Amino acid sequence: MTDDDREEEGCVFEIALVVPKWGENRGDEREGAHCVDILVDELRQKGFIVERDVGLQNEFIKLAASDDVIGRAAAALQFRKPTCIGMDLPFEWEEATAFIRLPDGSLFSWCERFRCYNHIIYGIVNTRESAVVLRSDSKEEHWKPGESLLRKLEAMGIVKEVFPLHDEKKRKQLLRSWAMNWADVTQQPIDDICAYYGMKIATYFTFLGMYTRWLLFPASLGLAVQLVDFGSLQFAVLPFFFMSLISWVVLFFQFWKRKNAAVSARLQIFNSASSESEYRSMKTEPSLSRFPSEHMRKQNSDRIKEKANFQREEWFSWLLRVRNDVFVILSIIFLQLPFELAYAHLYEVLGADVLKFGLTAVYLLVIQYFTRTGGKIAVKLIKYEKFDTAENKTNSLVYKVFGVYFMQSYIGVFYHALLHRNITTLRQVLIQRLVMSEVIENLLENSIPYLSYSFRKYRAVRNKVKRDKGSSTGKSRTFTRVEKEYLKPAYNASIGQEIEDGLFDDFLELVLQFGMIMMFACAFPLAFAFAAMNNITEIRADALKLLAMMRRPIPRAEETLGAWLNIFQFLIVMSICTNSALLVCMYDHEGNWNLSPGLAAILVMEHALLFIKFGFSRIVPEEPAWVKAARMKNASQAEQVCTRQLLKSLSGDEKWFEEARFQESKKDA
Amino acid sequence: MTDDDREEEGCVFEIALVVPKWGENRGDEREGAHCVDILVDELRQKGFIVERDVGLQNEFIKLAASDDVIGRAAAALQFRKPTCIGMDLPFEWEEATAFIRLPDGSLFSWCERFRCYNHIIYGIVNTRESAVVLRSDSKEEHWKPGESLLRKLEAMGIVKEVFPLHDEKKRKQLLRSWAMNWADVTQQPIDDICAYYGMKIATYFTFLGMYTRWLLFPASLGLAVQLVDFGSLQFAVLPFFFMSLISWVVLFFQFWKRKNAAVSARLQIFNSASSESEYRSMKTEPSLSRFPSEHMRKQNSDRIKEKANFQREEWFSWLLRVRNDVFVILSIIFLQLPFELAYAHLYEVLGADVLKFGLTAVYLLVIQYFTRTGGKIAVKLIKYEKFDTAENKTNSLVYKVFGVYFMQSYIGVFYHALLHRNITTLRQVLIQRLVMSEVIENLLENSIPYLSYSFRKYRAVRNKVKRDKGSSTGKSRTFTRVEKEYLKPAYNASIGQEIEDGLFDDFLELVLQFGMIMMFACAFPLAFAFAAMNNITEIRADALKLLAMMRRPIPRAEETLGAWLNIFQFLIVMSICTNSALLVCMYDHEGNWNLSPGLAAILVMEHALLFIKFGFSRIVPEEPAWVKAARMKNASQAEQVCTRQLLKSLSGDEKWFEEARFQESKKDA
Repeated sequence: MTDDDREEEGCVFEIALVVPKWGENRGDEREGAHCVDILVDELRQKGFIVERDVGLQNEFIKLAASDDVIGRAAAALQFRKPTCIGMDLPFEWEEATAFIRLPDGSLFSWCERFRCYNHIIYGIVNTRESAVVLRSDSKEEHWKPGESLLRKLEAMGIVKEVFPLHDEKKRKQLLRSWAMNWADVTQQPIDDICAYYGMKIATYFTFLGMYTRWLLFPASLGLAVQLVDFGSLQFAVLPFFFMSLISWVVLFFQFWKRKNAAVSARLQIFNSASSESEYRSMKTEPSLSRFPSEHMRKQNSDRIKEKANFQREEWFSWLLRVRNDVFVILSIIFLQLPFELAYAHLYEVLGADVLKFGLTAVYLLVIQYFTRTGGKIAVKLIKYEKFDTAENKTNSLVYKVFGVYFMQSYIGVFYHALLHRNITTLRQVLIQRLVMSEVIENLLENSIPYLSYSFRKYRAVRNKVKRDKGSSTGKSRTFTRVEKEYLKPAYNASIGQEIEDGLFDDFLELVLQFGMIMMFACAFPLAFAFAAMNNITEIRADALKLLAMMRRPIPRAEETLGAWLNIFQFLIVMSICTNSALLVCMYDHEGNWNLSPGLAAILVMEHALLFIKFGFSRIVPEEPAWVKAARMKNASQAEQVCTRQLLKSLSGDEKWFEEARFQESKKDA
Repeated sequence: MTDDDREEEGCVFEIALVVPKWGENRGDEREGAHCVDILVDELRQKGFIVERDVGLQNEFIKLAASDDVIGRAAAALQFRKPTCIGMDLPFEWEEATAFIRLPDGSLFSWCERFRCYNHIIYGIVNTRESAVVLRSDSKEEHWKPGESLLRKLEAMGIVKEVFPLHDEKKRKQLLRSWAMNWADVTQQPIDDICAYYGMKIATYFTFLGMYTRWLLFPASLGLAVQLVDFGSLQFAVLPFFFMSLISWVVLFFQFWKRKNAAVSARLQIFNSASSESEYRSMKTEPSLSRFPSEHMRKQNSDRIKEKANFQREEWFSWLLRVRNDVFVILSIIFLQLPFELAYAHLYEVLGADVLKFGLTAVYLLVIQYFTRTGGKIAVKLIKYEKFDTAENKTNSLVYKVFGVYFMQSYIGVFYHALLHRNITTLRQVLIQRLVMSEVIENLLENSIPYLSYSFRKYRAVRNKVKRDKGSSTGKSRTFTRVEKEYLKPAYNASIGQEIEDGLFDDFLELVLQFGMIMMFACAFPLAFAFAAMNNITEIRADALKLLAMMRRPIPRAEETLGAWLNIFQFLIVMSICTNSALLVCMYDHEGNWNLSPGLAAILVMEHALLFIKFGFSRIVPEEPAWVKAARMKNASQAEQVCTRQLLKSLSGDEKWFEEARFQESKKDA
């Protein structure tokens, strides 16, 4: 195959555009070129290596680019990249030697390349004086001067999709070293993952690996608690388990934060495009730095006005956010909670297993619908809020959706644990939920993509056969690699695809599992062993899913767990409270530990206050927005002004270094 | 007086050196100049305006400096100051016009001037080839080449002290606008305070003012709770008071953080010398930036070694810190706690009032000794610890000493509240402690400096009279202003003078008051009104103390409350727990809210775990030291390299601006 041959020579196609396959009316005599031909010409003019690949149903335009093309785009985007002196500077193609290369010798990481590709292909505009006629099979449209070609074609329905392509060589290497490497189950080639998938996915797998390794401690402790008889000390076993568990989890998250910081610092070189967005948003405000005298005159009145503006905006967005949060919380409490409680109660009350089965089926259908609606409402709500960064936006979404899932997953268990005080049923429910949900979810997670892939393949072949019958040409029915990838499902979140990617579901699964095993730890210590086993398979299953069953995801740059970390912390606090309550239930066999309403009320109040104390500090931001903006402006202006000169002196004339070195040696002598 | 005349002309003496007054052997015939004359000559050579002022007991060398002298020192110290383009750059005297001036038109704040004075006067070294003979009344010593003159003279006992002088004009202005301004009691001229005393004292008074203003809410609420009869709702009054109190305090500290950030940003111009110390500590490590090629070769092996080093050091210092903390906590629990409990118990048991009085006298004597010893041990302990910054060092001291004071102040009250469950006695104890301690402390705080000043004045006159009897010359016995200031006490902390200044005592008073009113709020809601009244007088009393009864303190740059803020937070959590316990005591008249050992144990465990959860996160630092160091190095290197060029283009040639403006206008047209 020429395809593979070319790739061996180092030309890797990284992006594909999907356009419809044209029938026989390709070479008709109408005036003007076909719009796909125009697109390909424009792409070639931008310096891309373009290959057109006709599949069974669609035509694929595959793009590859040399460092030269990417470099100029990176300079236009002003990526901040590390230089050999250790500081980050905006990239310039002329001074490329000053910038540090990646371990594999290339100048740009996948994340950066992807952004450059996007910048170039969406930056194709009509530079001629007059409009160009874009002709497709059915219609003709005018490409006006200054209009983006790709957006126009997307609007016309010609370009169906733009998606990143797998790099076959690296993918196979990762399959060997990661997904199929069963030697050490928690060890993963994080650097390679980061290079291939970007920082966000690497962070997820780093966390998953560390979490699984650390989980072995409570798993073995839980096994010991469950299986060993401690004789006369038996009564102290559960409290001891509880204490060590909480210490373990607190230490784990503390060390996770350290590891996260360390890994981010190590992998920073793959992730330098991330700081750029912040930098650009700063640049859009009018640059005051060039007219210091004028600037100083205006400064005082400006500053006061600016401050007032910032404060008004800050409080307005705060109010909006509070309103939305209150809305979400109230609707969860008054709509979802009764529903979940009703289900739990009905399930308990119903006698026949058939009825139970039917009820669960109805319930599952309804919550599917409920969750999807909740997600949509959450997405709609946060669209009206104003956020400084995209990260805050996703975080806000994550919190809201997690609220829905939290109720859904735990209310039934709470019902058994706290209202019925029935430890045996609780244990059964836990086993059911844990084992069933883990097994089923893992199965679904891996089979659904495969099934959908197979179905799309089958449909494509069927359509092809139908059409071939009409034209009766004897073409082969094999798929090219790019078409196979096109048929694979994208790595999308089950809710709010425009904001989050598939990691949302993976994190949600992890968090719900964590909550389940932590909050009811004292009732079922064995759960940790289940979770550890499950996570070990989860690592490989997720790796396989990403490598073999999904399209290559769009690289994202987030370096931390973000909102999920706060959710973990919240679950820890929750688990302290629920386990305490569980212990009271379990040790108070005779019910003589009197909780008369007075004491109980004070305890509830105390906990509510503790919650306020530690929750409130998140509601009001600690730093006024205008102070923060001033700080950011400061920092970005500082480097904006002086980097070009500095860069020249760094990479340009070696003379300067020679001189400096000479003087240094003279001083030493 | 010529003294005041000169000051009117704008020459303000800001620093005084104290040297002994010489008798008649001044003009003796020994070879070489007198050492004080040498010092004065050297100071004049450095560009100072020097005035010698002979007092009753000592001679004072007063120094003033022009902007020129200060500016050169500031450039040598590489102060980072804001420029007209909005970013901070190291100061250079040649480009002084590029830097923003203070509101009063001067180029340097008092904090910066003070550091420059110190830099210059301690930087006087012998630049000659041979040693110079320093002759004093009693002995002769050799001033070797390269040795600091001032350190030598301090070691010889000639220069007794170097202290900053009040600026009479500004002091009188502040007295009018601040200490004697009774119009709005919580409004203070923070900007002027910051300009005159430095950032740390301004922060203290900002906090005190805001705290007092906010305190009016719980004060009025407390009054209402105490005085109004709510009829059938009476039973819900205290819980409601408790809830609103906690919400109030949480909101207060959240808004305090915002105000602190805003005030720091506004007053940054007075405080630009603060960032300089961090910058300098970074500069001491070998700069790798000048040899990029060599640097890159070494980089990999270096980085691994460096990282390992950082980690070893980090863990070692962590262990040391934990050991010290454990030592302090254990000694407080096993030495101080029994002692305090014994006192509280004995006081309760003793019948006769005389015995009680005697016991209290003994107790007060012993705790004086105990506190001083504790402070000394704490200072000694933290000397062996390694801290990144001076701020962490003071924080560590503050935590340790606060532990001692916490036990001392509250154990007696806890004893009454929790063990005896006697609300009436508790209330009496609270009133006693609050009123007595506040009144007595305010009196002592203000009278002791005055008494010691008067005593030193009296002694000086008596000595003078004695000596005058011998020589029988008829000199006047009035004091010059500088001698009066010398006789005033310095603004020192009661413990660890080398680490903290007098603000330690003021903050300690504030924190202990806060703890007292918050932790026992439900037992005595009236306390807030007491505290509000006390704080209103405290503001003026502290202002008067600083302006009239103390030497001018050494300016400090800390912008936040530092450790005290965490102590406030700790007291809030404590107060949630103690108030809950108090409510249980107060509402459980019949003792039928059964707290059998099981439930009580679980509650205690739960609270301990919550404490661990929120306390642990402070024990392990979130960011590894090496990551932090790399980040800091990055930031400082960035600006180090390019600032000089940037500055030239800013202040030097206006041509560049003209051109830029021309091009801009062309673009607009």
